[in-house]
Amino acid sequence: MATYPFGSGRPDPASFPNRELGEAAMRVLPEMGNQLALYPGSLGYQPLRQLMADRLLKREGMAPAVDEIALSNGSMQGVTLMAQMFIEKTGDGVIMEEFSYSGTIGAYKKEGAELIGIPVDEHGMRMDALADELKTRADKGNLPKFIYVLATFQNPTGSVMPLERRKELLKIAGQYELPVVEDHCYADTVYEDYYVPSLYTLPSDVPVVHIESLSKILGPGVRLGCFFTKQPLLGQILSLRRDGGTSTLAAAVVHEYFRENLWTHVDKINSIVKEKRDLMFELLGQYPEVFEWFSRPKGGLFIWIKLPDATDRVKCEQIAEDRGVDYATGAAFHVHGSDVPYLRLAFGYASLQEIQKGIPILADCVREAQN
Amino acid sequence: MATYPFGSGRPDPASFPNRELGEAAMRVLPEMGNQLALYPGSLGYQPLRQLMADRLLKREGMAPAVDEIALSNGSMQGVTLMAQMFIEKTGDGVIMEEFSYSGTIGAYKKEGAELIGIPVDEHGMRMDALADELKTRADKGNLPKFIYVLATFQNPTGSVMPLERRKELLKIAGQYELPVVEDHCYADTVYEDYYVPSLYTLPSDVPVVHIESLSKILGPGVRLGCFFTKQPLLGQILSLRRDGGTSTLAAAVVHEYFRENLWTHVDKINSIVKEKRDLMFELLGQYPEVFEWFSRPKGGLFIWIKLPDATDRVKCEQIAEDRGVDYATGAAFHVHGSDVPYLRLAFGYASLQEIQKGIPILADCVREAQN
Repeated sequence: MATYPFGSGRPDPASFPNRELGEAAMRVLPEMGNQLALYPGSLGYQPLRQLMADRLLKREGMAPAVDEIALSNGSMQGVTLMAQMFIEKTGDGVIMEEFSYSGTIGAYKKEGAELIGIPVDEHGMRMDALADELKTRADKGNLPKFIYVLATFQNPTGSVMPLERRKELLKIAGQYELPVVEDHCYADTVYEDYYVPSLYTLPSDVPVVHIESLSKILGPGVRLGCFFTKQPLLGQILSLRRDGGTSTLAAAVVHEYFRENLWTHVDKINSIVKEKRDLMFELLGQYPEVFEWFSRPKGGLFIWIKLPDATDRVKCEQIAEDRGVDYATGAAFHVHGSDVPYLRLAFGYASLQEIQKGIPILADCVREAQN
Repeated sequence: MATYPFGSGRPDPASFPNRELGEAAMRVLPEMGNQLALYPGSLGYQPLRQLMADRLLKREGMAPAVDEIALSNGSMQGVTLMAQMFIEKTGDGVIMEEFSYSGTIGAYKKEGAELIGIPVDEHGMRMDALADELKTRADKGNLPKFIYVLATFQNPTGSVMPLERRKELLKIAGQYELPVVEDHCYADTVYEDYYVPSLYTLPSDVPVVHIESLSKILGPGVRLGCFFTKQPLLGQILSLRRDGGTSTLAAAVVHEYFRENLWTHVDKINSIVKEKRDLMFELLGQYPEVFEWFSRPKGGLFIWIKLPDATDRVKCEQIAEDRGVDYATGAAFHVHGSDVPYLRLAFGYASLQEIQKGIPILADCVREAQN
């Protein structure tokens, strides 16, 4: 692992509740009866689905029925299932932000989709650009199959789409009858007041599929997330699921821990990660000639940095690697892999000390990579 | 759940080590460091892969390198990935036993494959029929993409393919350059001496992908299995994996328990399930006019029963359901869903008492359903 790990989106490792999960396992596993000898089913362990519903109700004021929620292998399985659901043949289009999560880009390309990148600003996907794109495509009889959007703490840009724009998005989607997939995996990593209602809570003429993750507040190693939408779409998506279901063992242990500790845990890790974010911004601010940030995210795990146009990105990456600084390149988040003058810094995983030392080193790397 | 649960292939629930897994979790989770805050990667938790390799070495005398083994969500994820790997377009063929695992049949149909059922006898897939089928298809330029085979404790028939036939299978596969997928998920559920080497241990000109499961000796609720094959094929398969990896939490707990208990546990549950199998056969033998078994399996979890031809299968199922007897219908295991005069009984999950009471009731159901 890199000395300065700013690459992957991971939570704070020091606050991971290893011992508490062990204790939770010791409490719950002996009481599991025959449940681990059964297949989890396509929805999965009921108590964790109930906890997910309670969490949504508290956060969004509105939750789906417990039997409309399906547990999944992180949010990633949900993301992938949506492509299997909506992409019927090679070349079927999917609308995304021009910069989006690299995992989604990879999964949807693999499924044969045409990725249609809509330009973004500091408030997320631009609705004027979306309307233009869809009008052009409608005129040609070449409409895409669905819209994938990271409306809250967008990855990589950190933006939050304002309420009015969300309503506009749903209106446009309704106009062209396009289902909307809302990847909401960063919704609990919050450092400043930001709240905007999820798309699924807003009136809509088209189905909204909502995807959640526990990877960002607990850890990606547990591989737990969930997704939900209304019937009959939910059943159609679940019929594509061919993995036997989500681990009841992992779900039961995590449920037992979160049963009493969810919000305490979330508050605790958010206050730790906030400190890291603040320090990273403070340090980035000391190098205005090399770092320009796209937005100052109130949540999520990333800062999207615009580099000077004259930066030799390959050289920069090599120097950084030599000096132990890991970051994600801008191209990884561009829907067509274009070599854009950006990089993404993750602030959740590295320690304060690593951030303190690593950002000045990264500044040197960028400076030395100018043409 | 049915009063007499002979439907689904599940292990003995009473011997499930709930408490021991809780204790294992209490030992290992506090020592996990930052591992649960990291993505498991496409191979997964290394110590469990090592344990899988040790297990294969002991059982098969030959194990792949630990870095050639990928953990998966049960064996089912491996089964599904193979279709994604080899089926490129709708109608691409896959060779299977005429009767095969219903989960595989569903997954491969969903992937758009043409399922080509090869007749079976008490020694598994018939090689004369396979050779004929492939010759005919080769003449038409319409060869299938791969062979999927349950050579050991075939589901549903319980057969074990003898060594000579395995060699012939690999020879024929080599002749037509067809990769072979060996679903070996029942290999540890053994009640009598049977050993025949796995296909992957035999010389072969074509790649063999080998799939294992922990669902049959521990429980499907843990969702752990693995698969392996040689590079470059392994890398190609893993690139199709879009789920973020297999739960490190589940893998670490199960590894910690199995680290010292694997073979003790396997011996214990096999002796329990053997007793159930034996009782079920004893009872079935009391009704020779309604039950005829395809083979007397030395392992696995199933007995494949031939019903009298005059049985009204729909009526039989209705009566059985009314009386609380759950079994799997023959049609579920036929590659084309044909209504064949068979049913599959699972003997692992039901208690001795349930078997004792349920089989005579089932005999009545069959008798009453004669036309």
